[in-house]
Amino acid sequence: MVLLEKTIKKIGGLDYTLMEKAQERLNNLTKPQGSLGRLEELAKLIVGITRNGNPVLKNKVIFTMSGDHGVTEEGISAYPKEVTPQMVYNFLRGGAGINVLSRHVGARVVVVDMGVACDLKPHKDLVIKKVNYGTKNMAKGPAMSKNEAIKSIEGGIEVFEEEFSASAQGRPASGWKGTRLPDGQGSASSPEKGIDIVGTGDMGIGNTTPSSAITSVITGKPVENVTGRGTGIDDETLSNKIGVIKKAIRLNKPDAKDAIDVLSKVGGFEIGGLAGVILAAAKSRVPVVIDGFISGAAALIAYELVPEVKNYMIAAHCSVEKGHRAILDYIGLSPLLDLNLRLGEGTGSALGMSIVEASIKILTQMATFQSAAVSKKIGKQSRVPA
Amino acid sequence: MVLLEKTIKKIGGLDYTLMEKAQERLNNLTKPQGSLGRLEELAKLIVGITRNGNPVLKNKVIFTMSGDHGVTEEGISAYPKEVTPQMVYNFLRGGAGINVLSRHVGARVVVVDMGVACDLKPHKDLVIKKVNYGTKNMAKGPAMSKNEAIKSIEGGIEVFEEEFSASAQGRPASGWKGTRLPDGQGSASSPEKGIDIVGTGDMGIGNTTPSSAITSVITGKPVENVTGRGTGIDDETLSNKIGVIKKAIRLNKPDAKDAIDVLSKVGGFEIGGLAGVILAAAKSRVPVVIDGFISGAAALIAYELVPEVKNYMIAAHCSVEKGHRAILDYIGLSPLLDLNLRLGEGTGSALGMSIVEASIKILTQMATFQSAAVSKKIGKQSRVPA
Repeated sequence: MVLLEKTIKKIGGLDYTLMEKAQERLNNLTKPQGSLGRLEELAKLIVGITRNGNPVLKNKVIFTMSGDHGVTEEGISAYPKEVTPQMVYNFLRGGAGINVLSRHVGARVVVVDMGVACDLKPHKDLVIKKVNYGTKNMAKGPAMSKNEAIKSIEGGIEVFEEEFSASAQGRPASGWKGTRLPDGQGSASSPEKGIDIVGTGDMGIGNTTPSSAITSVITGKPVENVTGRGTGIDDETLSNKIGVIKKAIRLNKPDAKDAIDVLSKVGGFEIGGLAGVILAAAKSRVPVVIDGFISGAAALIAYELVPEVKNYMIAAHCSVEKGHRAILDYIGLSPLLDLNLRLGEGTGSALGMSIVEASIKILTQMATFQSAAVSKKIGKQSRVPA
Repeated sequence: MVLLEKTIKKIGGLDYTLMEKAQERLNNLTKPQGSLGRLEELAKLIVGITRNGNPVLKNKVIFTMSGDHGVTEEGISAYPKEVTPQMVYNFLRGGAGINVLSRHVGARVVVVDMGVACDLKPHKDLVIKKVNYGTKNMAKGPAMSKNEAIKSIEGGIEVFEEEFSASAQGRPASGWKGTRLPDGQGSASSPEKGIDIVGTGDMGIGNTTPSSAITSVITGKPVENVTGRGTGIDDETLSNKIGVIKKAIRLNKPDAKDAIDVLSKVGGFEIGGLAGVILAAAKSRVPVVIDGFISGAAALIAYELVPEVKNYMIAAHCSVEKGHRAILDYIGLSPLLDLNLRLGEGTGSALGMSIVEASIKILTQMATFQSAAVSKKIGKQSRVPA
């Protein structure tokens, strides 16, 4: 609890003075004012988050956190739970969607075991923060103990901080599978280090079920309105899934005002871990790009603990999974992309991160009216001398 | 007219057989079927366009075409018309929004003078296809002659084909300002050549006025409903702009069924040029990413000439400029991004192009269930042997 409390205490506000200066610069770039829309808003936000007028978003990291869910024994998923470790190995080999999209945008993927139900084979790029071998079945009791809930959030904080401070410690950062460096280059001898922007990602068969439960409890929306088809279940399984979530909420009575209680009663280890990543990023003034529904449930937990983390969050996209819209509305986030994604893993974060990076290049690389000798708006200012 | 007719005749359909094969591959990748939404649709479309089951979108080119507009003398724009050549020089120096975003996504920018109202200083990266020194004032007569309209479209076809076949001719392709190669690398000795995917972009003070006129005439929507604030005009100027467009349509009586007539009466040289790029791309089976409102007006002209070009078009984004939605609806295109952009130049195309490239990497780089030994959906198929 000490690490969590220390982290929460250090989360501060945006730097509005620097944001005003960024706005002035944006207004002087060779384009009509505001014509780059959300790119301009993002650039200004990143300046406010980082307290840096010329930020560079070079080190892009996506944390893909995995965990298993006891509730899968209720038959709520379309896939068997052995897919969780199988996909972790797929991440480590670089063959999953998140690897492809991370390479595309130049991000690296840090794969974390927060609570997979088996012992994973050790791998240099796998970070082990296992809280337990999967959660318990929330339809029969709490998914985890309160201590485990805190441990999962603190595990996420630790993973972030280890990666964030890798450069200071002079040790290689983990998770190389996602880099876009040419084969054989940029390995242990000169690793990229630190984190300039972070994305959240998840893997865990069954994890839309706890995510819907968390969303229903915290936003107050009926379970039916925030429960979707996950990886692709049929009508009958969906109806069962809704029933299981209702039962879990009725049985465990999570306290909507106590995020740790909600996480422990109806949550998951990877969800707690991602909430920790979000809190740690905010503490270190690193912008955090939130992926889809499961990451959104983690964002809800973090937001309930510290509403100020909202300032550090950028919603990458709006998922097909219908509870995600409820989360975005509740926190007050407007997604960057709407591409009908519902894979998770951080795939939306990767694409969103590239748009955030583009916004910063606009701020820092575009010519001004003066430097390019371009005339300003009629009636406001006369021609700038060449 | 010969080049235009030859180009139109050679525009064929998509390869549906290969698209089915691409769908099968997408269904076997390690993710729930369809969970990457529009990325999967894009990948399938690109296979159908290119007739290549493993396409590579390495050579990304954005044509930023410039022209001036006689109608600016009616006071319809917020900026003086000397900004058109000033911005062309900004493009050539690499300081404009399109340069920054093209570098970000690894595209190169080809800057084209389709009809700027002055002689531009020669530059190795500037392609001159000047039809005339700006259009005539459409509020007083046709913007251009029918011959000039055809010449502008054919100029666009030529620019595309020169860039597309650069490799075959063994000469360097033009337009290097947008490349993301490290400084001093990849210059004349080993230029990138050819075009795997193309984006459209525009520059021309006053060009939302002809674009609104074209949109109103072709879609049949009232001028008020398709006319916006362009670079940022006030209420009074907007009201004047609407009046000017109405007058131009009343005076010139463009024939909505004859796209060349519409272009000549109320169009622009860069709009004709971009229509040519779109037609040439379709002929050569190259996917074309359409930018905002002015590119949309060009897409309307191309679509009216050959409805089949729709198959080759990808709408990058939905512009703030309100006529753009009418264009997308009329052609039947669904935009990839909605970031409140209204700059033009090809800025939306650059960001959209990166998403299309990502979709192809998903198709060609992701592991399959079999190759990664990941279990398939419950009840449909048993575990794949490792």
